[in-house]
Amino acid sequence: MSNLLVFQSDFGISDGAVSAMYGVSKNVDSALQLFDLTHDIPQYNIWEASYRLYQTTSYWPEGTVFVSVVDPGVGSDRLSVVVKTKENHYIVTPDNGTLTHLAQSVGIEDARIIDEKINRLERSYESYTFHGRDVYAYTGARLASGKITFEEVGPALDVDQLISFNTPEVTVDGGVIAGTIDILDVRFGNLWTSVPKAVFFDIGIEYGDTLEVTILDDTRQVYKNVMSFGRSFADTKVGEPLLYINSLERIGVALNQGSFADAYHVKTGTNWKIHLRKAAKIVYS
Amino acid sequence: MSNLLVFQSDFGISDGAVSAMYGVSKNVDSALQLFDLTHDIPQYNIWEASYRLYQTTSYWPEGTVFVSVVDPGVGSDRLSVVVKTKENHYIVTPDNGTLTHLAQSVGIEDARIIDEKINRLERSYESYTFHGRDVYAYTGARLASGKITFEEVGPALDVDQLISFNTPEVTVDGGVIAGTIDILDVRFGNLWTSVPKAVFFDIGIEYGDTLEVTILDDTRQVYKNVMSFGRSFADTKVGEPLLYINSLERIGVALNQGSFADAYHVKTGTNWKIHLRKAAKIVYS
Amino acid sequence: MSNLLVFQSDFGISDGAVSAMYGVSKNVDSALQLFDLTHDIPQYNIWEASYRLYQTTSYWPEGTVFVSVVDPGVGSDRLSVVVKTKENHYIVTPDNGTLTHLAQSVGIEDARIIDEKINRLERSYESYTFHGRDVYAYTGARLASGKITFEEVGPALDVDQLISFNTPEVTVDGGVIAGTIDILDVRFGNLWTSVPKAVFFDIGIEYGDTLEVTILDDTRQVYKNVMSFGRSFADTKVGEPLLYINSLERIGVALNQGSFADAYHVKTGTNWKIHLRKAAKIVYS
Repeated sequence: MSNLLVFQSDFGISDGAVSAMYGVSKNVDSALQLFDLTHDIPQYNIWEASYRLYQTTSYWPEGTVFVSVVDPGVGSDRLSVVVKTKENHYIVTPDNGTLTHLAQSVGIEDARIIDEKINRLERSYESYTFHGRDVYAYTGARLASGKITFEEVGPALDVDQLISFNTPEVTVDGGVIAGTIDILDVRFGNLWTSVPKAVFFDIGIEYGDTLEVTILDDTRQVYKNVMSFGRSFADTKVGEPLLYINSLERIGVALNQGSFADAYHVKTGTNWKIHLRKAAKIVYS
Repeated sequence: MSNLLVFQSDFGISDGAVSAMYGVSKNVDSALQLFDLTHDIPQYNIWEASYRLYQTTSYWPEGTVFVSVVDPGVGSDRLSVVVKTKENHYIVTPDNGTLTHLAQSVGIEDARIIDEKINRLERSYESYTFHGRDVYAYTGARLASGKITFEEVGPALDVDQLISFNTPEVTVDGGVIAGTIDILDVRFGNLWTSVPKAVFFDIGIEYGDTLEVTILDDTRQVYKNVMSFGRSFADTKVGEPLLYINSLERIGVALNQGSFADAYHVKTGTNWKIHLRKAAKIVYS
Repeated sequence: MSNLLVFQSDFGISDGAVSAMYGVSKNVDSALQLFDLTHDIPQYNIWEASYRLYQTTSYWPEGTVFVSVVDPGVGSDRLSVVVKTKENHYIVTPDNGTLTHLAQSVGIEDARIIDEKINRLERSYESYTFHGRDVYAYTGARLASGKITFEEVGPALDVDQLISFNTPEVTVDGGVIAGTIDILDVRFGNLWTSVPKAVFFDIGIEYGDTLEVTILDDTRQVYKNVMSFGRSFADTKVGEPLLYINSLERIGVALNQGSFADAYHVKTGTNWKIHLRKAAKIVYS
């Protein structure tokens, strides 16, 4: 184990919830190194929790343990699990879809159900609402510090049984790429689509090309215009839209130094679709 | 000492104030482990600072030093103190009521007045406004790292002399429990009341019971309705109100996956009262 | 090197961008100690990035490495540099003016251009937009951990070639001090001016004196009133304005327990001017 424990939640950082999880972890082993992925996941937004794990886990050393607590079903019969990814990271989470993107991209190698008879804070109150502190942080800390092995988390679970969302396929038909607006680069309002850069290059799109971009909220057209595909924002004038390759090697849509999401009221999720195709070249003769 | 130093303030994290405190601490001893409770205490809100300490300190290892800087009286003759709780945690704070909840729940064992002739950053500027960095962080770091003992903080202070707020008693009269809305679970908008779970069980309330809940802003009625007492949110439909036991073993009021505080414009403090009683059972015959 | 790595950016903490930089750093050396200055620099606001470094670096131990990523020109031909200050701190940053205030206050001793052929994350994607993770965090981590020396960052750059903003001089003319509103104490809405306390004392202003304060947005008068110069906020009634010496030994303007910036719609920058002079003494006889 790496001794590294990284927390994600929808708790925010304005009260004591995160600090209580940190304290529990330090009580397990004061040598643990504690970090935050983010605690600003929108409340109960499992999709975004799943995406943020996909965005970051690969950059952390092998053996890092992630604790993700976005848990609208706390107190229900949803399972609590720990999985090991094929890149050798561990994720402690309710089994509610939080592992969707990691399962599809990196792959899940093994899963265990948390046995709460063993892996629950000893003096944890008769509180059925704060599993983040009493079960997830506690189990994550015990695993990251080597107090328990992965096997001692609890009984094995078939990885195919883990709950997953549907994520629409990216398709190419008649030169039109169809994908979804998966998530935002929050602070900057850039759209991150599901379209991998390879799809772009495969159909012969090159840097500098102009594309027609259509964005739909289900069937309602929200945006339609042409923009160029730039190597970076610096290839575009301030205030102009552009397509670019984001830090996950997928196609992003930005308004240079503005917020595309705010400007055009674009949200995210599988209902939000994007169509991309090379614009007709206008040749002046 | 534990080498663990935990900061709380109303500074926010948008400028350099917190980082300056961290830097001062690392200059005292670079082996110190630094953490945040929260820096989002509403400005000058001593009551909330007091509550957040109560919410979290117990979960941290013995010997952890907490630095809390919510200090509307900076530059006045208010004292700066370090206390040792009965659970062996240390709190560095202005003596302005920040210790109210810890004094009542855990208990304060010993108190020292910070002697600023000794315990003040050497090159600290002629700035009378930033005691957080120059006195509190500096003293906390010296204590947590063992550079000074608790006694070397300064002269002893009788713990009964520490400034405390009034906190109304929870009463039970004719089957009606009367308490206060002490604080919010900020991100989720749940109300945390002053009513301990024991009071509920003592008068025979059980999970699944329906209660009548009245909330008053002083004498003005803000909310009155019935809701059930659930083991967890999962016992209630999405959008329905419920009573539950929160992570501090007190009664909470929530709107399942909504924000009760936002929905009914409920604020917190000793003026905000809650009355709870078992609702009449309706028997259909 | 100190093993201390401190991050600043305009990324916010709501998505995975900061965590990816942390992961990259821990992959370089898991013994590195990672901290945040702030990630709430307003987007693309290089001036504020520059000021926050000035506000904090001095408090950190020698050898601390700061990574600052506020980079509106990412992908352009702006250089990426590492500088060593005269206080022996290192700053990793795009060369875009971020070093303005440190150059003027502390002084820059030496500068190196980052050689991205060597100092770039090995498996970094064909992403031209995320230099924060792939170049700045990676190089900062390698430097802080001693994997590379300062010289191994890349070729030397003349420190006089570093890009700097103009910062207007503070002037005194006929008893009127003229300066600028450089930045806010964000959470409290206090104005931090460019006027050093020495200028005040040099012209005979003393604590308790009343001054006439005029604030201008370029030529438009935004505020004009008298207020007293207090040793601390406690010298003023709640709700009253005051002048005080801030934590950087410059003159601040506050509304005791209110927000001066919000109350009078004051912004910051070189266009925002402040004039200060001793008010006429009214002698009642």
